[in-house]
Amino acid sequence: MSYNHILVAVDMSHEAGYLCQKALQLSEPAKTRISLLHVVEPIMAMPPYELPSAFPEGLEQQMVEQAKQRLNELGRENQISEWDLKVDIGATKSVILHHAHTDNVDLIIVGTHGRHGFSRLLGSTSNAVLHHAECDVLAVRIGRENSGR
Amino acid sequence: MSYNHILVAVDMSHEAGYLCQKALQLSEPAKTRISLLHVVEPIMAMPPYELPSAFPEGLEQQMVEQAKQRLNELGRENQISEWDLKVDIGATKSVILHHAHTDNVDLIIVGTHGRHGFSRLLGSTSNAVLHHAECDVLAVRIGRENSGR
Repeated sequence: MSYNHILVAVDMSHEAGYLCQKALQLSEPAKTRISLLHVVEPIMAMPPYELPSAFPEGLEQQMVEQAKQRLNELGRENQISEWDLKVDIGATKSVILHHAHTDNVDLIIVGTHGRHGFSRLLGSTSNAVLHHAECDVLAVRIGRENSGR
Repeated sequence: MSYNHILVAVDMSHEAGYLCQKALQLSEPAKTRISLLHVVEPIMAMPPYELPSAFPEGLEQQMVEQAKQRLNELGRENQISEWDLKVDIGATKSVILHHAHTDNVDLIIVGTHGRHGFSRLLGSTSNAVLHHAECDVLAVRIGRENSGR
């Protein structure tokens, strides 16, 4: 009855570790695979604006490299195989749903902040994941009150 | 790290048992309290319509009694104390959030049906719970594909 493959959608905050702990809590040793996924949103000019000329080249790639380092740390701290650490570029919602679908994920874990729930911080992304996922979704409330739990 | 009090919002379908199983899966024996809650929406005329004159009196109370019987069955099947079985009348979203708040619930479990997620069946209620809960929310996908899991 326990989950076979938990996908944790992590951002670069220090709270990503808390989400990993939730995944471990809901996993069964030697059965449950845990994957971490960080999505880098592509940097695009919003018409009619153009990207400033001083905009550094290769910024996305820098963000990907930073995310890989952070995921490596999280993986080490939570005994998650480096094969199950993924950084991808794209629209966050679509990338999460794509990985969940292709990797036979049966639980997606996403974080939610603040007193007023999803709509406050993670906004449309978590919302979209919740509405379109083909598997269970755990929305973990992250905030001052329970950050120590 | 495990949950102290899981509130399962159940309807009268046969899938309510599946949600109870999820709650048991995520609970820790001798630590986690599991409550079942069924909400009966009040029957009201929608202006400018009036309730038909043949509308049976006491229908809400009949629905409450049926729900109590069903919750008793679920409680027996899943070793949940009868003190933790609750039937309430009101707007589903508000009642769930009220019980979660006053009973120090740290995980709410709700069901979601169909390929297109929440919006399809449970609609605005699950949605609202997800957006306004002060604790974690697990949206359990119920469907042909995973009803046997």
